[in-house]
Amino acid sequence: MRYAFGIDVGGTSVKLGLVNTEGELIDKWEIPTRTEDGGRNVLPDIADSVKAKITEKGITEDIVGAGIGLPGPVDEDGVIRKAVNLHWDRTFNVADELSGMLGGMKVKAGNDANVAALGEFWQGAGKNYGDMVMVTLGTGVGGGIIHNGRIYAGVTGAGGEIGHLCLVPDEKTACNCGNHGCLEQYASATGIVRLTKEELDASDEDSELRHTEVSAKSMWEAVKHGDALAIRVAERFGFYLGWGLAVIAGVVNPEVFVLGGGVSKAGEMIIPYIEEHFKKHAFHACRDAKIVIATLGNNAGIMGAARMAIDD
Amino acid sequence: MRYAFGIDVGGTSVKLGLVNTEGELIDKWEIPTRTEDGGRNVLPDIADSVKAKITEKGITEDIVGAGIGLPGPVDEDGVIRKAVNLHWDRTFNVADELSGMLGGMKVKAGNDANVAALGEFWQGAGKNYGDMVMVTLGTGVGGGIIHNGRIYAGVTGAGGEIGHLCLVPDEKTACNCGNHGCLEQYASATGIVRLTKEELDASDEDSELRHTEVSAKSMWEAVKHGDALAIRVAERFGFYLGWGLAVIAGVVNPEVFVLGGGVSKAGEMIIPYIEEHFKKHAFHACRDAKIVIATLGNNAGIMGAARMAIDD
Repeated sequence: MRYAFGIDVGGTSVKLGLVNTEGELIDKWEIPTRTEDGGRNVLPDIADSVKAKITEKGITEDIVGAGIGLPGPVDEDGVIRKAVNLHWDRTFNVADELSGMLGGMKVKAGNDANVAALGEFWQGAGKNYGDMVMVTLGTGVGGGIIHNGRIYAGVTGAGGEIGHLCLVPDEKTACNCGNHGCLEQYASATGIVRLTKEELDASDEDSELRHTEVSAKSMWEAVKHGDALAIRVAERFGFYLGWGLAVIAGVVNPEVFVLGGGVSKAGEMIIPYIEEHFKKHAFHACRDAKIVIATLGNNAGIMGAARMAIDD
Repeated sequence: MRYAFGIDVGGTSVKLGLVNTEGELIDKWEIPTRTEDGGRNVLPDIADSVKAKITEKGITEDIVGAGIGLPGPVDEDGVIRKAVNLHWDRTFNVADELSGMLGGMKVKAGNDANVAALGEFWQGAGKNYGDMVMVTLGTGVGGGIIHNGRIYAGVTGAGGEIGHLCLVPDEKTACNCGNHGCLEQYASATGIVRLTKEELDASDEDSELRHTEVSAKSMWEAVKHGDALAIRVAERFGFYLGWGLAVIAGVVNPEVFVLGGGVSKAGEMIIPYIEEHFKKHAFHACRDAKIVIATLGNNAGIMGAARMAIDD
């Protein structure tokens, strides 16, 4: 059996995994992300951890390589431009640099959202489909496109950055990116809280959301209980996300959309709200795309990173 | 020198070209598209014409293959589902069928808009760029995505069908596709005429467009003469198309947009109207995409079709 390392770098911790070429996660561990000093220790710490694991397992000969997912735009050659969360502000080839620290081991690098998409495609909810778009509904909205089994990174590594599709040019509230009317202003966890507060402010109608902390989680709980105000929020969320997916389908015509991130933890119940508007606004030739919930959770990044090393 | 045939099938005529592997168009001719009897003669007529040309030129040994662009969705294997303009209503592998008629010659098939995009990428306005999106502004709006030098067809062959991106879900007027608020309702030649008529109806303001037949061409002529009403139409056109390109950029992050089709014949003057809104609505990481005018005109389809055969 042969193995690859899957490395998923976040601003607080780095998740590492040892994955075999069959797609089984054999071992999994974490190390802290040391962002001090411009994040100069991040890659050396990862290299040390990988080398220690190789020694521990005695598998030097059986490693095909390592893949690494990073919170920033990474192009198809492994060049990262900036990674604010890691305090990196230079443009360099991450893959080459980590490979150098690992004695020339084959290393592939990608953007974390794209890499998670590849993980879901390889061993998760996208497993039995062709071209796929992953939509990560977290604090923001991220995404990744898988075409012919590989990440579609785009020319500056921003392919699949669908959180900032402008749906409503005349939106009054600004997005974090500085634009107005981005998809993530409506479909992220933050967006759901915003829409909920708007509904709560718009009337005196009773709702269980008046008696609890408003969050994406409490909003979907209230929907489950049949709360009328929450259902209106779910419908607005579904309108924007369904419309957004229809637009994306018109560009890349995928076979499946995989929904991940915190908001997707509400599960299958969110799909009908989205699907109604997707079907309504999608061009007929793209309308049969399935919408499913991600299955790998936090392991998607590790699995996708390992896949990059195994595939190539 | 080696050669490929490039075949561009339209509802009225089939354009054929003989192209060398350096990208030079050596010879070019047309045959009628016989759509009667469910279009059963279309492929045999093409095969006869290709065989006659091979005999005429005496180049049997030097042919690498043929590419064919068709007015309908074609997937990456060469399967077409329907081609209304050719009166075809069955799903079959066009590439295999034409290859059989040509004694097993290598044949590649694609959607006509995608194939034209590949032509512009290979020898036209996209020549020195990486990933590209072509936008054809004709009676409708079509498009094609070129990724890593190849056509991105999508799972049902509708990749890059950007004319039917839904920008304005609450648009009152229906699009030909049955949806509401599609990009082509604003950015096609037909869309420009519609926007112009709206402006003419909205006031009594004088305009040279009150004294001529309204068309995309006469509208851009009026802009050139400084006609205030026409400039307002150009600004609305630019808003919708610039916004639409920003959305597309957020999905596939191309290096360049190439604008073709009848509307693009107005030339460079249309770009500032589009670019202003593109820059405003695009996510910052995708904002540097260039917007340029196509250069191959009607030859784009022949060139792209030949490229498919040469590339593979």
